[in-house]
Amino acid sequence: MSEDLLYHVDGDLVATDEATVNVRDRGFLYGDAAFETMRAYGGDVFEWEAHMDRLTETCEVLGLDYGLSDRELRDRVDETLAANELREAYIRLSITRGIQPGKLTPDESVDPTVVVIVSELPRGGRGSQPVWDGPATLQTVKTKRVPDASIPARAKTHNYLNGILARLELRVTGADEAMMVNTEGHITEGATSNLFFVRDNALRTPSLDGPVLPGITRHMVLELARDEGIPVEEGQYTPEEIRSADEVFLTNSTWELRPVETVDGLSVGDDADEADGTAAGPVTTLLSRLFDARVESAYYD
Amino acid sequence: MSEDLLYHVDGDLVATDEATVNVRDRGFLYGDAAFETMRAYGGDVFEWEAHMDRLTETCEVLGLDYGLSDRELRDRVDETLAANELREAYIRLSITRGIQPGKLTPDESVDPTVVVIVSELPRGGRGSQPVWDGPATLQTVKTKRVPDASIPARAKTHNYLNGILARLELRVTGADEAMMVNTEGHITEGATSNLFFVRDNALRTPSLDGPVLPGITRHMVLELARDEGIPVEEGQYTPEEIRSADEVFLTNSTWELRPVETVDGLSVGDDADEADGTAAGPVTTLLSRLFDARVESAYYD
Repeated sequence: MSEDLLYHVDGDLVATDEATVNVRDRGFLYGDAAFETMRAYGGDVFEWEAHMDRLTETCEVLGLDYGLSDRELRDRVDETLAANELREAYIRLSITRGIQPGKLTPDESVDPTVVVIVSELPRGGRGSQPVWDGPATLQTVKTKRVPDASIPARAKTHNYLNGILARLELRVTGADEAMMVNTEGHITEGATSNLFFVRDNALRTPSLDGPVLPGITRHMVLELARDEGIPVEEGQYTPEEIRSADEVFLTNSTWELRPVETVDGLSVGDDADEADGTAAGPVTTLLSRLFDARVESAYYD
Repeated sequence: MSEDLLYHVDGDLVATDEATVNVRDRGFLYGDAAFETMRAYGGDVFEWEAHMDRLTETCEVLGLDYGLSDRELRDRVDETLAANELREAYIRLSITRGIQPGKLTPDESVDPTVVVIVSELPRGGRGSQPVWDGPATLQTVKTKRVPDASIPARAKTHNYLNGILARLELRVTGADEAMMVNTEGHITEGATSNLFFVRDNALRTPSLDGPVLPGITRHMVLELARDEGIPVEEGQYTPEEIRSADEVFLTNSTWELRPVETVDGLSVGDDADEADGTAAGPVTTLLSRLFDARVESAYYD
């Protein structure tokens, strides 16, 4: 993130260095905050309504009535993009429970802190360059995904240590993303991405009761596959099924679709695919192109 | 927390309103931070070495090498107490992983943000008034304690939503503290407190593999009980065992020992105890007096 940008903090546009929250803010003290990571294409926000639906869901889980309309939040995002003259951007919108008297139990009355952070990204759409350096290496980790019974995975919050502990395990192998299983040993997702794989020409992904974050890009990819007539399955899978898959890829709002080259050190699928250096199998390539075409028609045409 | 205090933030003493962290600080973005809640008695910090040992343990779990000695941290705490002319105080010492490039995976090189927040408390020790309003009401909640396999309970971090979700469930009953069970249905602890109960004249508390935070006051209470010859048991218990206990109390660094009056709406123990309005049974009362005496001799004599 560059130092010479303007962020939106608590209603004002401020320079990066002056973009602060009070140390008594519950977003700082407890990670008591909801957020969305979004991508702007051609000055518009990708799937804004879907992000707002998920933000609403998160805040329902947190019992956080922040009292701002989607329109008011969108205005702050748009003002931030305009102030930085950004049309292609990463956007992080956070809403904290603000400052309350010094106890853990939240008050129902909330004066939220709203923060919009942005940074520049390359153009998306047809023929675009991905934001990632190359295909991902994926590594199963020991850290288990937090169960829904402890913190529901559908809530996207500032409590991210579970994913951080997973990523710390990668220091040994140097892998890009952690493959996290639940307490029963089934695959859930990566630390910051949803996971897909292809077997017998069908697209498969852990179901949302994984526990799994209902990713916006995940949802779009499933829709594109169904529209294309690709068989789709949401289920429960073991790490071994991912290691022996024909294709594996990851999704999130910034990465879009990112092919996976190796799982636990083993090459994914047919080695012949790697001759062209992309490591992406045919289903991954097709879905990536369909995704780019969708972005192109919705945000650039 | 009063508005006219000075906090210690990143090396400087600053007024409460100016005590801020950057929105790119990982403590804000992800709750990627360790902390300790401590109590000062007579200008000294209760069990400082034990708090530093636990902070070290937390930072080992987080892979956070903050590069400051216990002495340097203590100097910041002492400076904050002195600047506010406080000898009896609540102290919250937080260490975040600071600002790093915009990705979830932490860099090994850390420029930490150190924050010391204080507020005034009454004098402790012999004959002291408790900081709580009265005996606690305890309520079993549906939110399960995060398993050690997801985030180790021995790490005291800014990821506190699990406890906040538990406390939100109390809005219905108005209870003071949540009694949290693990995914197997055994008692672990409260949202911000360790739990003890008395049955057959023995003091019992969930063992640390609960998962349970190794509370400093919890440790001290167990030590006082053993020294007094009270039988002590650390084990696995069901909510029903707490509901039918002779005495129940909670501990944390601020509350010290706080008796529990009701569990899930049922009065604890013998109703006769409540005639004097304290609701504390004989073992709880004895341990509270021993605790006060220990504080008196160590910090005021």
